[in-house]
Amino acid sequence: MQSKNRILLSHGSGGKLSHELIQNLFVKYFNNDYLDAQTDSSLIKTTGGEISFTTDSYVVDPIFFQGGNIGKLAVCGTVNDLAVSGAIPKYLSCAFIIEEGFEIEQLEIIVKSMAGEARNAGVKIITGDTKVVNRGKCDKVFINTAGIGELPSLHRHFGFGNTIKPGDKIIVNGNIGDHGIAILAAREALSFKSDIASDCAPLNDLISKIVGNPASIRFMRDATRGGLATVLCELAESKNLGIEIQEDKIPVNEIVAGACEIFGFDPLYLANEGKIVLIVDGNDASNILETMKKHPLGKQSSIIGTIVETNPKKVLLETSVGGRRILDMLAGEMLPRIC
Amino acid sequence: MQSKNRILLSHGSGGKLSHELIQNLFVKYFNNDYLDAQTDSSLIKTTGGEISFTTDSYVVDPIFFQGGNIGKLAVCGTVNDLAVSGAIPKYLSCAFIIEEGFEIEQLEIIVKSMAGEARNAGVKIITGDTKVVNRGKCDKVFINTAGIGELPSLHRHFGFGNTIKPGDKIIVNGNIGDHGIAILAAREALSFKSDIASDCAPLNDLISKIVGNPASIRFMRDATRGGLATVLCELAESKNLGIEIQEDKIPVNEIVAGACEIFGFDPLYLANEGKIVLIVDGNDASNILETMKKHPLGKQSSIIGTIVETNPKKVLLETSVGGRRILDMLAGEMLPRIC
Repeated sequence: MQSKNRILLSHGSGGKLSHELIQNLFVKYFNNDYLDAQTDSSLIKTTGGEISFTTDSYVVDPIFFQGGNIGKLAVCGTVNDLAVSGAIPKYLSCAFIIEEGFEIEQLEIIVKSMAGEARNAGVKIITGDTKVVNRGKCDKVFINTAGIGELPSLHRHFGFGNTIKPGDKIIVNGNIGDHGIAILAAREALSFKSDIASDCAPLNDLISKIVGNPASIRFMRDATRGGLATVLCELAESKNLGIEIQEDKIPVNEIVAGACEIFGFDPLYLANEGKIVLIVDGNDASNILETMKKHPLGKQSSIIGTIVETNPKKVLLETSVGGRRILDMLAGEMLPRIC
Repeated sequence: MQSKNRILLSHGSGGKLSHELIQNLFVKYFNNDYLDAQTDSSLIKTTGGEISFTTDSYVVDPIFFQGGNIGKLAVCGTVNDLAVSGAIPKYLSCAFIIEEGFEIEQLEIIVKSMAGEARNAGVKIITGDTKVVNRGKCDKVFINTAGIGELPSLHRHFGFGNTIKPGDKIIVNGNIGDHGIAILAAREALSFKSDIASDCAPLNDLISKIVGNPASIRFMRDATRGGLATVLCELAESKNLGIEIQEDKIPVNEIVAGACEIFGFDPLYLANEGKIVLIVDGNDASNILETMKKHPLGKQSSIIGTIVETNPKKVLLETSVGGRRILDMLAGEMLPRIC
């Protein structure tokens, strides 16, 4: 082991090695005027109006998986939380907690990937922090990103869902459960390992195509931990409305469906990192669907169900074989450390 | 062990237990309209102009110590990073990474303390995240806070220090090294345990008293990891100026000085969590000092040195016995996980 290629406690001391790490890694790759100033906080010019503010910590295990890594996830996840609120994601903070002994080369791959994904999503990583903990006191690396987005004055906060009403349609932008199964595969070295990639992607560009007529969009949420079912259960509960979805309209990759059968998982509860659930005006649903299908991240979009007056607070799944079952919020934990 | 009194992996699943935890702990104590909305991001109305954005993760070990705990630190630290930029701290995010099995009662003490400190500092905790990792994969609890502050139009970003010039004076607002020694004491169960408390405090109120005349204030920075010496070394280096400080003007508690002698630490490099270093116009230094001394967090304020033309990029310490030594940036790590 060459210690100079590994993270030392001193990299988190705030002293010389911290400065080297910031300069040679973070400033190099994240590369923007805000970071160059190297102050503890960054200045942002606002134009007035509303901004959206969010945070998430990422502790995914393993840190590298088919379709992404913890860094890509940390950028996309926070970008998506901003985008589903109706905001245009603009700025991210980025804070690392790193285990002593972690290979700097691996950190570099993660940081590079974050920089690329930030460019891809049109956001700037403008402030950060690095802490190092003794070996065995964390698991390789944890990343927190907080994000700021600008809310155009014509947009509402789409996360509230206060205008949802019976007759509204539910849309998802493609196959569900890919992220969950990709992580499972990376953990277990399963035979389907190379066949399924995480859907981890920034959704702000797709979302920007459909928020032009905000009156049609009642609600947006990315279906991450807890999956599609949990988003819908939360919504039915909080809005005192019924939700009916049809199993055969819900897009699921065959490999994911197969893996779920083998391992006893339900794709409805598997985590996604590139899927939004939309509630839209029933009259505009097919137009919105068409627009989404034209986007690379929306090709498999599907109208999966309807908001109803009957059975308030309940989510009913009409199964492919014609049965009905009530979906509940995720009660336990299917796959810990999925994001 | 009653498992219901401990954090389970399911508390981080995004499902039922996550919701209970959010409702019974975070929403209860942080208690504001923003959180009540329970969306993944929160909306902030801005008045235009500039905002300051910062982040820090807190991994202090132990999580409870004389004068504070990891939660109090997470609020004060980020409030201070905003305040030294010249901003008025307004909003915090708060993300927990918790070890499976952590006592919920301890978490409640931390959350309560964060809520109290946020009230004390006049900031609102408006968005958050909770992740749970398997036992042994983190150390009890890590907290990230990101913060947003509003920069009044007459303030500059005091973190840049672009107007510093020879003749300017250096002020600190009191005893240095208290936080470092409080952590050491909590770790080692030393005899001075009960005598020294961390200086952990939000400095925004003190700072608000002295930024009325921004032309006089050239630079502000809180002296955390790396201590007073590292802040000054960074400044001398980046501004290509010399700094001279006098040992007998630097306020150090006797107990801290004694502990440093025993353990071979230098108080100049010990972490603080309630100390600012100010560079001010030499002509206004005594006025600013008087104002600071009237504030509870500035009673021991002292002018400790001067910006000079000689010895650019160097920090010279004039010792109490009349010698001179050059201070360097912290090279190794005296006390890991100090914040």
